[in-house]
Amino acid sequence: MAKIAIVMGSTSDWPTMQNAAVMLKQFGVEFEAQVVSAHRTPNLLVEFAEQAEQNGFCAIIAGAGGAAHLPGMIAAHTHLPVFGCPVKSKALNGLDSLLSIVQMPKGVAVGTLAIGEAGAANAGLLAAQVVALQDPAVREAIIAFRKAQTDTVLANGKLEL
Amino acid sequence: MAKIAIVMGSTSDWPTMQNAAVMLKQFGVEFEAQVVSAHRTPNLLVEFAEQAEQNGFCAIIAGAGGAAHLPGMIAAHTHLPVFGCPVKSKALNGLDSLLSIVQMPKGVAVGTLAIGEAGAANAGLLAAQVVALQDPAVREAIIAFRKAQTDTVLANGKLEL
Amino acid sequence: MAKIAIVMGSTSDWPTMQNAAVMLKQFGVEFEAQVVSAHRTPNLLVEFAEQAEQNGFCAIIAGAGGAAHLPGMIAAHTHLPVFGCPVKSKALNGLDSLLSIVQMPKGVAVGTLAIGEAGAANAGLLAAQVVALQDPAVREAIIAFRKAQTDTVLANGKLEL
Amino acid sequence: MAKIAIVMGSTSDWPTMQNAAVMLKQFGVEFEAQVVSAHRTPNLLVEFAEQAEQNGFCAIIAGAGGAAHLPGMIAAHTHLPVFGCPVKSKALNGLDSLLSIVQMPKGVAVGTLAIGEAGAANAGLLAAQVVALQDPAVREAIIAFRKAQTDTVLANGKLEL
Amino acid sequence: MAKIAIVMGSTSDWPTMQNAAVMLKQFGVEFEAQVVSAHRTPNLLVEFAEQAEQNGFCAIIAGAGGAAHLPGMIAAHTHLPVFGCPVKSKALNGLDSLLSIVQMPKGVAVGTLAIGEAGAANAGLLAAQVVALQDPAVREAIIAFRKAQTDTVLANGKLEL
Amino acid sequence: MAKIAIVMGSTSDWPTMQNAAVMLKQFGVEFEAQVVSAHRTPNLLVEFAEQAEQNGFCAIIAGAGGAAHLPGMIAAHTHLPVFGCPVKSKALNGLDSLLSIVQMPKGVAVGTLAIGEAGAANAGLLAAQVVALQDPAVREAIIAFRKAQTDTVLANGKLEL
Amino acid sequence: MAKIAIVMGSTSDWPTMQNAAVMLKQFGVEFEAQVVSAHRTPNLLVEFAEQAEQNGFCAIIAGAGGAAHLPGMIAAHTHLPVFGCPVKSKALNGLDSLLSIVQMPKGVAVGTLAIGEAGAANAGLLAAQVVALQDPAVREAIIAFRKAQTDTVLANGKLEL
Amino acid sequence: MAKIAIVMGSTSDWPTMQNAAVMLKQFGVEFEAQVVSAHRTPNLLVEFAEQAEQNGFCAIIAGAGGAAHLPGMIAAHTHLPVFGCPVKSKALNGLDSLLSIVQMPKGVAVGTLAIGEAGAANAGLLAAQVVALQDPAVREAIIAFRKAQTDTVLANGKLEL
Repeated sequence: MAKIAIVMGSTSDWPTMQNAAVMLKQFGVEFEAQVVSAHRTPNLLVEFAEQAEQNGFCAIIAGAGGAAHLPGMIAAHTHLPVFGCPVKSKALNGLDSLLSIVQMPKGVAVGTLAIGEAGAANAGLLAAQVVALQDPAVREAIIAFRKAQTDTVLANGKLEL
Repeated sequence: MAKIAIVMGSTSDWPTMQNAAVMLKQFGVEFEAQVVSAHRTPNLLVEFAEQAEQNGFCAIIAGAGGAAHLPGMIAAHTHLPVFGCPVKSKALNGLDSLLSIVQMPKGVAVGTLAIGEAGAANAGLLAAQVVALQDPAVREAIIAFRKAQTDTVLANGKLEL
Repeated sequence: MAKIAIVMGSTSDWPTMQNAAVMLKQFGVEFEAQVVSAHRTPNLLVEFAEQAEQNGFCAIIAGAGGAAHLPGMIAAHTHLPVFGCPVKSKALNGLDSLLSIVQMPKGVAVGTLAIGEAGAANAGLLAAQVVALQDPAVREAIIAFRKAQTDTVLANGKLEL
Repeated sequence: MAKIAIVMGSTSDWPTMQNAAVMLKQFGVEFEAQVVSAHRTPNLLVEFAEQAEQNGFCAIIAGAGGAAHLPGMIAAHTHLPVFGCPVKSKALNGLDSLLSIVQMPKGVAVGTLAIGEAGAANAGLLAAQVVALQDPAVREAIIAFRKAQTDTVLANGKLEL
Repeated sequence: MAKIAIVMGSTSDWPTMQNAAVMLKQFGVEFEAQVVSAHRTPNLLVEFAEQAEQNGFCAIIAGAGGAAHLPGMIAAHTHLPVFGCPVKSKALNGLDSLLSIVQMPKGVAVGTLAIGEAGAANAGLLAAQVVALQDPAVREAIIAFRKAQTDTVLANGKLEL
Repeated sequence: MAKIAIVMGSTSDWPTMQNAAVMLKQFGVEFEAQVVSAHRTPNLLVEFAEQAEQNGFCAIIAGAGGAAHLPGMIAAHTHLPVFGCPVKSKALNGLDSLLSIVQMPKGVAVGTLAIGEAGAANAGLLAAQVVALQDPAVREAIIAFRKAQTDTVLANGKLEL
Repeated sequence: MAKIAIVMGSTSDWPTMQNAAVMLKQFGVEFEAQVVSAHRTPNLLVEFAEQAEQNGFCAIIAGAGGAAHLPGMIAAHTHLPVFGCPVKSKALNGLDSLLSIVQMPKGVAVGTLAIGEAGAANAGLLAAQVVALQDPAVREAIIAFRKAQTDTVLANGKLEL
Repeated sequence: MAKIAIVMGSTSDWPTMQNAAVMLKQFGVEFEAQVVSAHRTPNLLVEFAEQAEQNGFCAIIAGAGGAAHLPGMIAAHTHLPVFGCPVKSKALNGLDSLLSIVQMPKGVAVGTLAIGEAGAANAGLLAAQVVALQDPAVREAIIAFRKAQTDTVLANGKLEL
């Protein structure tokens, strides 16, 4: 069965990135999450990315902050789809993370989500949407999630002062 | 067979967005490209997005500039994966396009690529990578493309003044 | 009598957007406020915007944060004047909201106010200024409000260390 | 009959601001355009804004670049609706113009349009939308314009490489 | 004797702007501080600026936040030197204030200081430096202040972990 | 008689900075212009700034681009008023120059003008305004300049399509 | 033995800059830290930088915030390698510090590190890497540090929800 | 003898990066320049960086644009000093390149130079300054270069209108 990898540059990214995991779990999509640091464990990065396909992953979610090289370097070592999550950084609030992840050159792609927790959750959703292309149960779960989300908004009545 | 939709807000986006088409063609992935304007043809947008799955598309590439609402609104009307391409804008060089596309709220996802032509090409590549999960021929074509791209760089010798 | 619609992407926008409501109430302009999410309730958006005129609204105030597509998409489905309020976002403080709302392409207009509470209040004021073109009582109320506001500032004496 | 004023800080803003005039003319809305510089003719600004209502204007479109104080200062001297157009500036491409116009404090409102020509055109459109609330002919003209604009996009077929 | 005016858009700017007053007081330069709002008391602004010279002021310090039009509009109504202080704003941290103040067009000048308290203090210092050109006592006070400031830094020894 | 120094980091800044010279000449204010590079001639900078007062200057206009340290370092070595001109830079269009000049710490002030030619011209104007405090002829010249500038704008009639 | 100087514009920068000291100490590299303010002690800056080589320093780490002129001005007075640390500033979070330090003109270089504590630590690391070119013990210490850092990351197992 | 490596992500970076080579050549420092793409030749990157020391390099200059991962990833695979050059990018003028290079996390350092040609030249200068710590001839050449550069500026006389 399809499995998604969630990697991040530091354990301090987990509070952000676990939103991806929660989303995948909600859709019944299997995942594995671990720390892979582009700068501190560059050889692990190579090994992880090059073996990701044979290890049964069909897509990789990668989150990092600041000079966020992890998603792009993962993408450089695999032909699996890679989704990048800019983690909010201390000084520049994740604008550096976003630009470092999204502005990839032609030939190596990273599908980038929003800065922070919403983006991480959406990375999980997007990966599930990819899985859903082959897995009717995941497809149904996403449709149900989207419907429930719509219904929750529709349940709001008029707002009063 | 898997088919990718390429939509864009205006014919003036085609010089940018055709890079996605070229990439898909190179991998033998079928595509259809058309103008769907979020602001000028909002009903077409709804119709297009809601029927995309039954029309045989497995992913949608959407490009727009400025207040670039097309990718996010397409995503709001489908559960297919949507990849967004920020087209370079006149005044702000696509920074407005990028933020309008990537900063989606939790629950509706757009995988966003780089501003401009490189990003559009990579949207084609990323969509093909999704197709490759089910299509061995596309997978082989991507691996070959990536290898050729690597070889081209490796063929460069030392640079001299 | 003229009535103003206030819509916003999420109940979490209400603390910001209620400033528009307070302003309208102060001028005796009728309003209705509700959540309409561009991304989570896109069909409600279409329905709401297309029926706004026949439901007696003469202008629409729309607030959203991040990839803030609500005001522009409302404007795409109506010819009533639309005023957009960029809600302060988590990572980028509303700069993303502002650019997503204000940078509309030629042919569909959104009159955009400042980021946050002041902008929401001013959206109420501007909508009331539009109503005042036809409603002498509202015109008088605005003139009185502006005069009182001026008098409050003039009442300040010299500032001392 | 309703009349719109178009003012701008310099004759060099006319190539941008005439897009507002073209739009108004298209809808049969009367307008007058002139240079009123906040910094070089501040007394004219006061006089113009304070007499705008009695001179028959129902809304004012004001365009300026850089430290763009014209729209906000016009708004400070009138209770008519004011729509602001950030003109593209030399060094910062209009980002300074945009922030100077849109970030108004609570109590004095400027409905701000996009940077440059598209924004100026939309200021004309938005002013016409306000006029249309009282003028059925303008309302019809706007509906026809919007329909024609939609039809133009719909007339595009598939795009081919 | 030379006297400096300190004006600001709101009493909420006083905690920032009083730093200018403290600096002037330290140099024995007379000042008067008051609220003059460009948007809420535009006529007071005109009156204040046009009478500043005959009221004995030789320079004007003006502070404002957001769409900070006060310094530039004061400058438009006087030929006295005007020094502008960008007050830190809620959403954009004063970047909007800075650009609104500093990006003046050719022909009307505002000497702009840093965002926030340091800038306000320096506006007081700069105004005092202008006064010092004619007033030997102020010149001596500034020289003494600068020397003391230098000595304070020099008094720091080595820093240890 | 009062004399103004114009210094700049490179001869390539002269096309920008000569606008300050033109303005001063127009008002009959004496000036001397030369290149003083903070980074390439730091000792000249010290010497120039420390002797500026005894060399008869009453204010210093300093222009530089990029990491624009000249105005602030001049200010660090003199108690004369210093006016800083951010020269438009290659990559960041002068935003770097502006922030490098304006964001001075408390205790050493630089009155900063707009990026580029308009700002340089205004530095000349502002320096002349300082001179005018002591020199009635310069005061008259400035008043005449401002009146002529106003008259030029007023001479514009209505703008026609 | 090689010795590194750590200078900063204010004692308030020490909480940031001590990260450089900690890093150097960890590698057994001698250092001296002191306050040298470009703006408040410009003569000390000249003296310090000109004598740095003869005082036994082989590289200089300089940290400052806002209009951060210290690193570039140190570099202007020495031919030793200078590493610059942008300290996080109040209003602009260190973006001003970063641009003021990094955007040096051709001919005087500052190797710039990240904004804030991480950058200061890395300045210590980079200076140690320079020392390591001549000092095998420091080289070994850096290799050990890098290995330990890698091992710490590798010790993390899978992350669980 | 000490040798410097110059690597860059693409041959299109050579017009920028050759400025580093010219600078090194001027000081008599040996160098080798080649294309190493982080994304297209990631294995070459690993091999190059891990062998750089034994191949006789004492420092590495790395230039890249956009999501510029090359300098940081080189630094992740070596303990030699790495100097990063942000190449000007198409859409964002190198601001993305700058942030991607400079905002490195604690533990892996890149000394970053200015965007574009000046920064590349300064990377050559800074690398030479490191070499000069061990090589008196290079030290003399740098001192001579700096003196010549100073003399060139000093040779400029007064500037005239």
